[in-house]
Amino acid sequence: MNNPGTLTLVLGGARSGKSAFAEQLARDSGLKRIYLATSQAFDDEMRARIDKHIKDRGDAWETVEEPTRIGDILSRKAACDSIILVDCLTLWISNLMMAEQSIEEAVSELLDTLSSLKGPVILVSNEVGQGIVPDNKMARDFRDHAGRLHQQIAAIADHVYFVTAGLPQKLK
Amino acid sequence: MNNPGTLTLVLGGARSGKSAFAEQLARDSGLKRIYLATSQAFDDEMRARIDKHIKDRGDAWETVEEPTRIGDILSRKAACDSIILVDCLTLWISNLMMAEQSIEEAVSELLDTLSSLKGPVILVSNEVGQGIVPDNKMARDFRDHAGRLHQQIAAIADHVYFVTAGLPQKLK
Amino acid sequence: MNNPGTLTLVLGGARSGKSAFAEQLARDSGLKRIYLATSQAFDDEMRARIDKHIKDRGDAWETVEEPTRIGDILSRKAACDSIILVDCLTLWISNLMMAEQSIEEAVSELLDTLSSLKGPVILVSNEVGQGIVPDNKMARDFRDHAGRLHQQIAAIADHVYFVTAGLPQKLK
Repeated sequence: MNNPGTLTLVLGGARSGKSAFAEQLARDSGLKRIYLATSQAFDDEMRARIDKHIKDRGDAWETVEEPTRIGDILSRKAACDSIILVDCLTLWISNLMMAEQSIEEAVSELLDTLSSLKGPVILVSNEVGQGIVPDNKMARDFRDHAGRLHQQIAAIADHVYFVTAGLPQKLK
Repeated sequence: MNNPGTLTLVLGGARSGKSAFAEQLARDSGLKRIYLATSQAFDDEMRARIDKHIKDRGDAWETVEEPTRIGDILSRKAACDSIILVDCLTLWISNLMMAEQSIEEAVSELLDTLSSLKGPVILVSNEVGQGIVPDNKMARDFRDHAGRLHQQIAAIADHVYFVTAGLPQKLK
Repeated sequence: MNNPGTLTLVLGGARSGKSAFAEQLARDSGLKRIYLATSQAFDDEMRARIDKHIKDRGDAWETVEEPTRIGDILSRKAACDSIILVDCLTLWISNLMMAEQSIEEAVSELLDTLSSLKGPVILVSNEVGQGIVPDNKMARDFRDHAGRLHQQIAAIADHVYFVTAGLPQKLK
């Protein structure tokens, strides 16, 4: 994990332990840790929950909250003495869809950024494509965007893990 | 499988062949086999279906039906000359939710029991977290409970398998 | 892939890259390539999309469109100097359900055909059983049919792959 620009993708289902595994990878790197959270606080309850997560991770992490422009943050913050954990990409896609932004453009920009990183990055994302085809079009579009993004990132990533019940399988 | 207390978790999607694989593991142990079914017969049709399953497994299995208190059964029945197959944990969670019992307490008790087993146990459970986020809250809660339970059991299990199309992958 | 009758099953979720991987396997065989598409053009838009896929694959592929009777095509077309890619089985099941045909009979016929192939065949299918139990009965039936079919084909296949984010895992 100490090579500048090393890119790791951590996939898994809901409550699969993917985030805990990704945090462990970050701790194991021995580097300064930056947590890039894509979640948004729409009300006090969510704000309280996000603050609890920040507190639970403790002082060893710097937390940055950014729902959509994660490429910008990665460009500015990536450095060889720190590791950035982005949690998570599916929420990022969801945020882009809600903001009615072009997914294609945002993904293209993110891939450009990921191809020339100045420091190690771990991306966490949800596998959402292994159930029944959803009834509503927005859910189908979301699933398509997520699946395509995972393929594109996996193609350029140095390491890809799939986490099930807290147990990682190395896919790449 | 012959060590007292050996704990095996078998995960898989719907119709993945996870139960058949778990039954094969139990047969391969050479031990007396106990089938702990968490399914409930709410009507004659379900009763007939459960009775057919019991008949299909044949005389080599003792069947115990218990929708919620599986910890009690495992405490009383686990022994080094027999193997207990619990099918399945997701149904158990569903039964607890329907009975409006505390999932946290029930899981905590089950984990205690599993940590000090007097004989081998195989637990079967459904992977339900790799599709789209469900619309309704009960389904989301169920999915969260199942995912967390799988992580907690996998952490203490001796063996964890994921079955796809009848083919097991050993995760641990 | 050059042995007559070699059967390969490629499973994966939505947008997992399973079709691209299967096409790569077909290209790697060095054989004449036949694409058996189970998709149906119900309107001009779908017709245009299917025609685009045909064009994208290029002249190196012969395309056969058949929504339900894929066993017939495989019997007639399978030969040791060519490789047939069927994309995909879940759509085939869906087509059979819409046509109100017996899934059991159709699956039984297909399995017979697959057991005595005169040339290599690659079958692509969607994993649909790893999400929450669907609300509606047709979706549950579909999921059960797909899961059972995958088990039955995996049991007789020479090779089984599961593709996630474009990365294949060999299950058999």
